[in-house]
Amino acid sequence: MSPVPKPPVPSPLNPSPRFLMGPGPSDVHPRVLAAMGMPLLGHLDPEFVALMDETQDLLRYVFQTTSRMTLAVSGTGSAGMETVIVNLIEPGDRMLVCINGVFGARMQDVAERAGAAVAVIERPYGQVFDPDEVKAAIQRVGPKVVGIVHAETSTGAWQPIEEIARIAHEAGAMIALDTVTALGGIPVEIDAWEIDAVYSGTQKCLSCPPGLAPVSFGTRAVEALNRRKKKVQSWYLDLTMIQKYWGSDRVYHHTAPISMNYALREALAVVVEEGLEARFARHALNGRALHAGLSAMGLSLVTDPKHRLPQLTCVKIPDGVDDLTVRRRLLRDWGIEVGGGLGPFKGQAWRIGLMGYGSRQSNVTLLLAALETCLRDLGVSLPAGEATHAASAVYAEAAK
Amino acid sequence: MSPVPKPPVPSPLNPSPRFLMGPGPSDVHPRVLAAMGMPLLGHLDPEFVALMDETQDLLRYVFQTTSRMTLAVSGTGSAGMETVIVNLIEPGDRMLVCINGVFGARMQDVAERAGAAVAVIERPYGQVFDPDEVKAAIQRVGPKVVGIVHAETSTGAWQPIEEIARIAHEAGAMIALDTVTALGGIPVEIDAWEIDAVYSGTQKCLSCPPGLAPVSFGTRAVEALNRRKKKVQSWYLDLTMIQKYWGSDRVYHHTAPISMNYALREALAVVVEEGLEARFARHALNGRALHAGLSAMGLSLVTDPKHRLPQLTCVKIPDGVDDLTVRRRLLRDWGIEVGGGLGPFKGQAWRIGLMGYGSRQSNVTLLLAALETCLRDLGVSLPAGEATHAASAVYAEAAK
Repeated sequence: MSPVPKPPVPSPLNPSPRFLMGPGPSDVHPRVLAAMGMPLLGHLDPEFVALMDETQDLLRYVFQTTSRMTLAVSGTGSAGMETVIVNLIEPGDRMLVCINGVFGARMQDVAERAGAAVAVIERPYGQVFDPDEVKAAIQRVGPKVVGIVHAETSTGAWQPIEEIARIAHEAGAMIALDTVTALGGIPVEIDAWEIDAVYSGTQKCLSCPPGLAPVSFGTRAVEALNRRKKKVQSWYLDLTMIQKYWGSDRVYHHTAPISMNYALREALAVVVEEGLEARFARHALNGRALHAGLSAMGLSLVTDPKHRLPQLTCVKIPDGVDDLTVRRRLLRDWGIEVGGGLGPFKGQAWRIGLMGYGSRQSNVTLLLAALETCLRDLGVSLPAGEATHAASAVYAEAAK
Repeated sequence: MSPVPKPPVPSPLNPSPRFLMGPGPSDVHPRVLAAMGMPLLGHLDPEFVALMDETQDLLRYVFQTTSRMTLAVSGTGSAGMETVIVNLIEPGDRMLVCINGVFGARMQDVAERAGAAVAVIERPYGQVFDPDEVKAAIQRVGPKVVGIVHAETSTGAWQPIEEIARIAHEAGAMIALDTVTALGGIPVEIDAWEIDAVYSGTQKCLSCPPGLAPVSFGTRAVEALNRRKKKVQSWYLDLTMIQKYWGSDRVYHHTAPISMNYALREALAVVVEEGLEARFARHALNGRALHAGLSAMGLSLVTDPKHRLPQLTCVKIPDGVDDLTVRRRLLRDWGIEVGGGLGPFKGQAWRIGLMGYGSRQSNVTLLLAALETCLRDLGVSLPAGEATHAASAVYAEAAK
């Protein structure tokens, strides 16, 4: 009667120490880890409900929005993407998706599954869109929604958004923005830019484990939601119901992931303690130091300096060097995780993250020193010691 | 330029101690809380990938299945429900849903959003379905899938499944089973009963925080998935892609909630250490003691003794007693959370959970003593002290 016998008792969980310097998850702040381990409250406990209110206020600060419909969806960043799309799109609605990396492509897939008539414009991986080409596409397509990625995790490209949002609104379209890798690392100004719908993730520049997706809907998006003729196709991601739990009604929808909400609240408290401006300056400085170090090592970066993210750097692998050999050694000898390339960059580039708690001088120096050692041991000719020296010079200059 | 000024720095997170004796989340095992607080590995780290393999094996044990497609979906139990339905159902497919509580009703809603032609049969809350009436409905409807709930969290009813599964198969239908409150608390025999698709949650009898949904698909369900003509409508919950990450390909889909997977692995390790049979016996014993105590207090239980779950008990509120007055006092004075009634039982019943780590003699005794105190203070005439005495007699009898 027992087709599956009792397996051996597993040994205690004991993950090896890591420096998570890939595209995410990033290293979690110690205060956030402590919050993850706290005993649970019920999902309708008055204390938990107060924590939800507090989290919404904190999210409004990091998103720079006053929108009431600002909350955390109970899934990872991709669930945030799907939430925004399935709530905004009804079958047959036209959507324009701007694709210059993996996450734009994902948006197209999600939108098609939601029944959207999707048109796309594309840019090579690593480049960004020019407002004029987006304007031309909007005029051609006449979309209800324009989807675009602020910080492309697959390439490290930093897409300017403000003018594109203005163009979309002039044409009567809404703009849906992916800020998964942006939020908490570079300025995200949802109200100032008049972004209609935005989603993010917890495991990048917020230094929280993956598992929640902060989402905010502005006035136009809420109106579109209220005007829907058809139910949202996903029950789990239906904001018309989710907002009744996050709102003052507190109508049970699903059991909120309590510990993940503790963690997000604590991660946002850490952001407030530092302040957004100081946080962005820190990310910018460490990114600059990393870029200086990689360049001093003779490596090329994928993105143009004008559109280069500080928190996620895509660097080309030197000719003749094997991707996995280097990444495996970084992990084995130093516990450093960096990401492999995606799409056309598979095997051709590494992705180095300096996100949130992980964006600090010691990580920059360790990564540069370890990478230099790996490459020299593989016979790559390098100006020895120049990488950490160049990074150090950036910090010295900033300290003046 | 900063429409949302920096809020005051929040005070440190410090949740009040609780005894979570409602319908879930339940109290988390201390070992699982410790796992939640451990530093993260990346979602493609060899150690994390090994942990996923191990978790799948442990899930196969608790589900009692050898099915390869056994994994944890990155959302709560309701995401598990939606995963099973959107992967099995294509628009126009007929589905029969058996509704005797909130979660059957939710299944109907999810299935309709997935485009199913849904037929329902209903039983009053608290009752279970008879195989004959399910058989008649299957013959009338000719469904592709029959959806039914094993342990109704809204009523405490324990639905026998084996014969209904046999009837469904004889008619060429698949059976989709909700074991959110069942798994780890009462026997769940997926292979022996030939269940085609099953989902659960982590926050009930597994004593893990909410945030993952264990799911398993058997041979028929996998074949139906492979035969689909149309993409699964949810990108996030598409098992054809999710299994490529959980399988040996390790193709990136979304960033797995690392800490929640640590926690589930640890929770399952705790289950293995105890063993399923011992665990079920413990739940049965504590349930029996609670039922004896409540009955000794003169309270009525909603479900028939033959179909009464040990881990979730729905007890009628005595005439003249206000639901919230009692629940607020239990929370304020003892930190005890019990659940309110749902649907027709709103304000009419309480739901008392003894799940996983929370299923123990001290919790039974504390709850009975506290509830007796509340009711006597409200003027309910009770045989004083009889409740804890009756519970104690059950333990004494079992120890013989």
